[in-house]
Amino acid sequence: MADHRDTGLTLDPKFDAQGLLTAIATDRSTGEILMVAHMNAEALAATRETGEAHFWSRSRGRLWKKGETSDNVLRVVEMRIDCDQDAIWMICDPAGPACHTGRRSCFYRRIEGDGLVSVA
Amino acid sequence: MADHRDTGLTLDPKFDAQGLLTAIATDRSTGEILMVAHMNAEALAATRETGEAHFWSRSRGRLWKKGETSDNVLRVVEMRIDCDQDAIWMICDPAGPACHTGRRSCFYRRIEGDGLVSVA
Repeated sequence: MADHRDTGLTLDPKFDAQGLLTAIATDRSTGEILMVAHMNAEALAATRETGEAHFWSRSRGRLWKKGETSDNVLRVVEMRIDCDQDAIWMICDPAGPACHTGRRSCFYRRIEGDGLVSVA
Repeated sequence: MADHRDTGLTLDPKFDAQGLLTAIATDRSTGEILMVAHMNAEALAATRETGEAHFWSRSRGRLWKKGETSDNVLRVVEMRIDCDQDAIWMICDPAGPACHTGRRSCFYRRIEGDGLVSVA
């Protein structure tokens, strides 16, 4: 099953039918996942060029820099790509809360029993 | 922008048009992201019932337990869901390498310059 994309050292992102990759941001200091969103080729290029996380907003249909209005940018320390090159992992230093609810991480609720428990 | 899904304590996953969520597995001991895949409602239910990560294989069109042939199962210690409930974070104890290439993590390459550098 392995091909050049899985094992080679050429960056060759596998965008989906909508032209998107999954992009995950983690906090360098705590290791926690901060947020998950999508990147098109333009967002990937902007992130690499600026060192700040950019995404493609599917709902708004436009390029979007995380923190463009809130100032809670994500400074990207390291970027990794997975074996089939359809997902990006960004290790970040966040300037503030990543979640629009004001929490540090969007993943602030644990699934427990039939419901959710807030952990932040 | 916040609604009950973003801030409430009711588990109400927002499956996409294909009936899928994004599911991310991290290693409890190292914090690294091991793999990213997709879950439909059946995979989410199977994961919650068994405590082992199940996914929906888009290429094979079927439910798939990670490690079903390799024995490299992912024991799920904790599950979290993000603010808009379309992504799941599983904190796992992996029984072996998560990547089909034999690496511990699928994210074994760093993006550097115009190419990739292997870090595992």
